[in-house]
Amino acid sequence: MKNKIEIAEDWWKWGAATNRKKLAEYPKLKQFLEGKLQTNLDDVQSAPTFELETEEESSVVKNFKKELPHIIIQTDIAQKLLKSIGKSYHDLLFAFHHEKLDIPQAVVCPKDQEELQQIISWADKNKTILVPFGGGSNVVGAFLLKDGMTGRFVLDLSKLNRVVEINEEAFTATFEGGMYGPELEKLLNDRGFTMGHFPQSFEFSTIGGWAATRSAGQESSHYGKIDDIVISLKVMTPAGIVNTSMYEGDAEGINLKSLFIGSEGILGVITEVKVKIHRKPKTKKWLTAIFPTFEDGANVLKQLAQNEYSPSVVRYSDEEETAFMIMYTITKPSLITDTLEYGAKAFLNLKGMSKPNILMIRFDGEKPDVDIKVKFATKLVKNHKGFMTGEGLGKKWEESRYGLPYMRDDMLERGLVVDTMETVLPWNKIEPMKRELKARLENSEAYGGEKGVLLAHLSHIYASASSIYFTVITKMDREQAFEQWTEIKNIVTDTIVEFGGAVSHHHSVGHDHQKWYLQKTDEVTIKILKAVKNTLDPNGILNPGKLFDE
Amino acid sequence: MKNKIEIAEDWWKWGAATNRKKLAEYPKLKQFLEGKLQTNLDDVQSAPTFELETEEESSVVKNFKKELPHIIIQTDIAQKLLKSIGKSYHDLLFAFHHEKLDIPQAVVCPKDQEELQQIISWADKNKTILVPFGGGSNVVGAFLLKDGMTGRFVLDLSKLNRVVEINEEAFTATFEGGMYGPELEKLLNDRGFTMGHFPQSFEFSTIGGWAATRSAGQESSHYGKIDDIVISLKVMTPAGIVNTSMYEGDAEGINLKSLFIGSEGILGVITEVKVKIHRKPKTKKWLTAIFPTFEDGANVLKQLAQNEYSPSVVRYSDEEETAFMIMYTITKPSLITDTLEYGAKAFLNLKGMSKPNILMIRFDGEKPDVDIKVKFATKLVKNHKGFMTGEGLGKKWEESRYGLPYMRDDMLERGLVVDTMETVLPWNKIEPMKRELKARLENSEAYGGEKGVLLAHLSHIYASASSIYFTVITKMDREQAFEQWTEIKNIVTDTIVEFGGAVSHHHSVGHDHQKWYLQKTDEVTIKILKAVKNTLDPNGILNPGKLFDE
Repeated sequence: MKNKIEIAEDWWKWGAATNRKKLAEYPKLKQFLEGKLQTNLDDVQSAPTFELETEEESSVVKNFKKELPHIIIQTDIAQKLLKSIGKSYHDLLFAFHHEKLDIPQAVVCPKDQEELQQIISWADKNKTILVPFGGGSNVVGAFLLKDGMTGRFVLDLSKLNRVVEINEEAFTATFEGGMYGPELEKLLNDRGFTMGHFPQSFEFSTIGGWAATRSAGQESSHYGKIDDIVISLKVMTPAGIVNTSMYEGDAEGINLKSLFIGSEGILGVITEVKVKIHRKPKTKKWLTAIFPTFEDGANVLKQLAQNEYSPSVVRYSDEEETAFMIMYTITKPSLITDTLEYGAKAFLNLKGMSKPNILMIRFDGEKPDVDIKVKFATKLVKNHKGFMTGEGLGKKWEESRYGLPYMRDDMLERGLVVDTMETVLPWNKIEPMKRELKARLENSEAYGGEKGVLLAHLSHIYASASSIYFTVITKMDREQAFEQWTEIKNIVTDTIVEFGGAVSHHHSVGHDHQKWYLQKTDEVTIKILKAVKNTLDPNGILNPGKLFDE
Repeated sequence: MKNKIEIAEDWWKWGAATNRKKLAEYPKLKQFLEGKLQTNLDDVQSAPTFELETEEESSVVKNFKKELPHIIIQTDIAQKLLKSIGKSYHDLLFAFHHEKLDIPQAVVCPKDQEELQQIISWADKNKTILVPFGGGSNVVGAFLLKDGMTGRFVLDLSKLNRVVEINEEAFTATFEGGMYGPELEKLLNDRGFTMGHFPQSFEFSTIGGWAATRSAGQESSHYGKIDDIVISLKVMTPAGIVNTSMYEGDAEGINLKSLFIGSEGILGVITEVKVKIHRKPKTKKWLTAIFPTFEDGANVLKQLAQNEYSPSVVRYSDEEETAFMIMYTITKPSLITDTLEYGAKAFLNLKGMSKPNILMIRFDGEKPDVDIKVKFATKLVKNHKGFMTGEGLGKKWEESRYGLPYMRDDMLERGLVVDTMETVLPWNKIEPMKRELKARLENSEAYGGEKGVLLAHLSHIYASASSIYFTVITKMDREQAFEQWTEIKNIVTDTIVEFGGAVSHHHSVGHDHQKWYLQKTDEVTIKILKAVKNTLDPNGILNPGKLFDE
């Protein structure tokens, strides 16, 4: 018997309803997309109402309730749905196609480490699959299992959110893995400190999740990726607890920390994370500039990284993303905005920058250091045909740094594909790869040929390489949405990998990148990982099928 | 039948004979030690002439020669001795007590990676123990096997010393594992670059060895430990070749690089190392100062690290080491040096620094940055009762930065114990641990009670912690030399571990620290390492018994 079940229609959306944006609020942008994609974006189709056969409680759930009666277990469909997928475009398609979704049996929610240990033991004994779930913001299908693997329990870690220690004397802090970004930073900020880790998912992601996925924050060019920030981990596994070496630097054998960073829940549950913390910088200074070609600005960033003058925040948008961002700021077109726009265009044409690429960088620290860096960067900008544009844009970006995901869901409902893909590449491969990718996408029907929109930016820089982050926007093929996405994803990741890029710079492998990860990873590495997996999780209950096939 | 075998008497000594120093060249120092230790240091006893039964070539060696006739194998005693031990005090005692030494069966020396692979396959098939040997400078017994494990082949990697790539565009370089420090740096320097890794063993250690032992160079507070410098590794194992992820930053699954850094030869042979390189700094500025108490200067260093103003080189000696260093500079005492010394003492007394602790730090980089750091450091020094003493001492230290090991062998021959021990500790444990260690040693007969000499310095700093490096000097008990060393080593490492220090900050675990390493390391970690070992080296041929017992 099928019942209509009352589920909030927006269960799959990003953040609180009051913070969400609609494309219609940005008429210039909407108009641009409608023109480019040759489509009408007023046809808003909400996700269909959810229908489900009423289920009998399974024997596994009954057994859990009997053996661990004190632990929270949720079997209502609303909770299970909420924690069945992450936030990738591919994941969100399930909101429109419920029938394809494998819904977990239950959500279990340990309130402390002891309960977590009991759950892991129970699941190990009963060979029940556990999929760790922190903030749920993952965008590479971290929570999807392979076809045929069903009956999973989602392990909701959000109550494991204690402060173990903030050591102001040693500049370290230790948190339980389920602590969310904003709470963690607030605790540190109140003491004058910061951890310096601000991924775009900051509001809805946890420190344990950051470690499990090798996350990078928007200030990673100064504070490092999570790999650099983490000093040590406590990890709970079916085989027992691992505490990795506790020092910032030592030669006490092999440090197993890195074995769990990026382990995507397959080896154990990251229970505690000890990190470096920093005094909040006294001075923050934005520098923004525009460049006539993408290469010019990229060269500035390369020079900054290679001269050890990396900014904290780096945001360098290509001409398409720059134009997109400008349209995204205009909520009420008027004679004034039109005149300003007209004037700006005339000015840019005069400067030979009809299609500018905008660079926004922020230097943090003590004022004298910041001054030196700003001076150095300013000179570089000028030497590379850049034109300085003041601090305003950077500050504006900062205000809305976590904002973009709030509009995507509305765009999906209006029949748009909106997906993001990212990698890290040697500096000299950035430009050729980007060019080739654009050409290949424009040859693809799934992308809409020349109608498709591709935006790109650089946001994490190294002496040897830079990340590059793409946003793909095109008209959704509502009938063949999964197939369309697969085709686009294949073109993008095939191209990335051909040019020597990583399958991901900061989103991890997950369900979506596994094919390429396995292509790229040597046989002996996989053997090692399997040996570790078999040692820690001999019954294969932890997020099975991720990274490698068991 | 025993034959006297002609072996250069100094086979066990550090470096070239012409560079070696004798204690007698430093009369003030000799006089001080003679007074403090109440002994005469003119009784120089060379290591005894070597006597050995003539050996038939073993069937294993014959088999190797038959199956791999093109590969260099050395079975002469001189070569075998040279590569039987490292350079720890404990190792060097074997020079005086040959009879206790387990001499390898042979030294095999692959001239390229293909030969290395053949050797590993051969050894795996024949279950012959291979002990990888780079520069041979290890000071924790890296080359000693446990009692009863005999018949090892030493794997001399010195011919695997090719440049794979120096990529000036990407600021990376890749070298084969057997490349020595000076050659590597020269290649980079000629192109305007540096790797920034200068351990005291620099002249006689290899990049593969640095990685295998988690080495730290004297400039690690700027360039990082080898863990930070290495981007990726190629490792040859009996199970095949591992190439770790090639990016400076990525989220492409689990990065196995760290599994091999500090693996001490038990998992595979580090064949290629890809590292970050840096432009040679334009400005280097020494700042030296003296402090009335050890704590004052340590506080300056802590502040520098926590304010992200770490110098490149840090060298902060306690009062005993400061006094020692001053005596070590005086080769020809005269009325002038005596007067100067007298004057200096009078001056120091005036300043309330009868027993100064000397700090030497060097800041590198672009001049404006260096100026800011020097200014900041200078202010800190003054705020912590320090007295600035100019650049001269720092420059002098730099000239002789690799010099100290050249005198140790002479001190051994004169009947002195000279050993070094080091760790990393939270800042607030440095002082109490040092105090407790001194007290415990002074209660120990092996150390000579209050006659013993303990020198200490800090040389690698972090926001949370600092390394501390001890030199122990006392009168050798020539009859019970091994037992005496064991007692001293136990006191030192027990104390370090009790105060929460690592068994080593940059010398690795080896033979000498294994007891404490196993005490400190959790069961699950050992299980993981064993699983990896069994996967890569199922026959246990690679440096068996290190880190954990098989």
